[in-house]
Amino acid sequence: MRELYVIKIGGNIIDDPGKLEGFLQDLASLPGYKILIHGGGKIATQLSEDLGIRSRMVEGRRVTDAESLKVVTMVYAGLINKNIVAALQAVDCNAIGLTGADGNIIRASKRPVRLMSGGEEVDFGFVGDLANDSVNVQAVTALLDSGFVPVFSAITHDGNGQLLNTNADTISSVIAVSMSAEFQVSLVYCFEKNGVLSDITDDKSVIREIDPSRYKTLREENIIFEGMIPKIDNAFDAINRGVHEVFIGNAASLTDLGNKNFGTRLTQNGQDV
Amino acid sequence: MRELYVIKIGGNIIDDPGKLEGFLQDLASLPGYKILIHGGGKIATQLSEDLGIRSRMVEGRRVTDAESLKVVTMVYAGLINKNIVAALQAVDCNAIGLTGADGNIIRASKRPVRLMSGGEEVDFGFVGDLANDSVNVQAVTALLDSGFVPVFSAITHDGNGQLLNTNADTISSVIAVSMSAEFQVSLVYCFEKNGVLSDITDDKSVIREIDPSRYKTLREENIIFEGMIPKIDNAFDAINRGVHEVFIGNAASLTDLGNKNFGTRLTQNGQDV
Repeated sequence: MRELYVIKIGGNIIDDPGKLEGFLQDLASLPGYKILIHGGGKIATQLSEDLGIRSRMVEGRRVTDAESLKVVTMVYAGLINKNIVAALQAVDCNAIGLTGADGNIIRASKRPVRLMSGGEEVDFGFVGDLANDSVNVQAVTALLDSGFVPVFSAITHDGNGQLLNTNADTISSVIAVSMSAEFQVSLVYCFEKNGVLSDITDDKSVIREIDPSRYKTLREENIIFEGMIPKIDNAFDAINRGVHEVFIGNAASLTDLGNKNFGTRLTQNGQDV
Repeated sequence: MRELYVIKIGGNIIDDPGKLEGFLQDLASLPGYKILIHGGGKIATQLSEDLGIRSRMVEGRRVTDAESLKVVTMVYAGLINKNIVAALQAVDCNAIGLTGADGNIIRASKRPVRLMSGGEEVDFGFVGDLANDSVNVQAVTALLDSGFVPVFSAITHDGNGQLLNTNADTISSVIAVSMSAEFQVSLVYCFEKNGVLSDITDDKSVIREIDPSRYKTLREENIIFEGMIPKIDNAFDAINRGVHEVFIGNAASLTDLGNKNFGTRLTQNGQDV
């Protein structure tokens, strides 16, 4: 089975031109099939402020009203996505920048109004939720077969003409799971740390391999806690749904993926590399 | 040889949601291979004003400084392009939204500093000029063969990581000429009139067919004059470089393309439809 890397980067890289340039060079040098998904960063927030659009937050989540959707479509799908594509082309990586609307590749559904714990009904606005069958595997495969490296911003559509703002981690996971029907997929989450650390004060204390039984022990020993737990839960969920392996590590070390020595590697059964 | 429509729409349609929706439905119903190129419209100008970015004009042309380039990248490649794609997907047209950077499809070169008639040196900024070999025919053909309908905004790149603002009419013409190597191309310019008129006060006085000898006569009789001359010169230039035929007509009548009864048809030798 052909191997495919599905790689997600977030705002910490997008917002740092030097880091981004280095990362994109490393991505270009990574052999084989690959897909990049990028988050948004601070540019959308800044543009909203410049335009006097106030962000409404509910329980830590941004509400995407019509004006905010315009801003994220402009910034994510336009400014950030196309500059990443141009930078990749400059280092001979044949990137093609996409949203989920393009080629009907990611169809989402608008998040229903939710009853919050306080009894308040909240409409998160133009936010898209994904389902197991949201990704058009045939279209993505056609692009990969044509030699393109798809670069996705976190904008999807509902199939009825409406664009939707969608979580980039979720897009990455759903693409990785769906593409596992055709490829052996490695899902790679890049963040600001070197991986899952056994001592959060020591950047070098990366735990190289975690399988479910090790994960259970690490949680019981309180070595893995708080913010890392949902990340790892989501990673194992992707593995349970067909993804070969998940890496969590530092974008600056992407070249280590080649020898599978990148950050922390999560697998189903501690299987061989 | 397979037939391909290369269709350009401008600001007069982009700026009118009702017209745009109708046009996109007509485009979706047009059978066969097709490519859409869209201009910008007033949204970029409005956003620039909202952000306090002042447009500098030289001899009627906008200078694209770094801030203006960000605005057009956001508006053309993000907001407008992705909403057009989502609207086309809603009517079962498998659109894929692109800039010239995507798939390295259109490589331009930054316009050199020009010495103007008044002796002033003018740098038009991040404006891209195209050459005969600017279009990656293989990449476009791969997308068409995969069942996609490419939708281009008028942003290109220089291959070294720099995005460039490029005239949408020129992009349409260069794409049409280049794709003529693989397809029998009909280049279609949509504008606000029904075609080339023999009486500019009568919208129904459309001249159905023009070949070079007829064109010569129409100019000598002063029936075609002023603004229409460069449009038709460019059309015949495209025909001389391989394009099968050029149509100039009203976006609202796109369905008439099916029976080649759309606006004014320009051909090399008044050849048969």
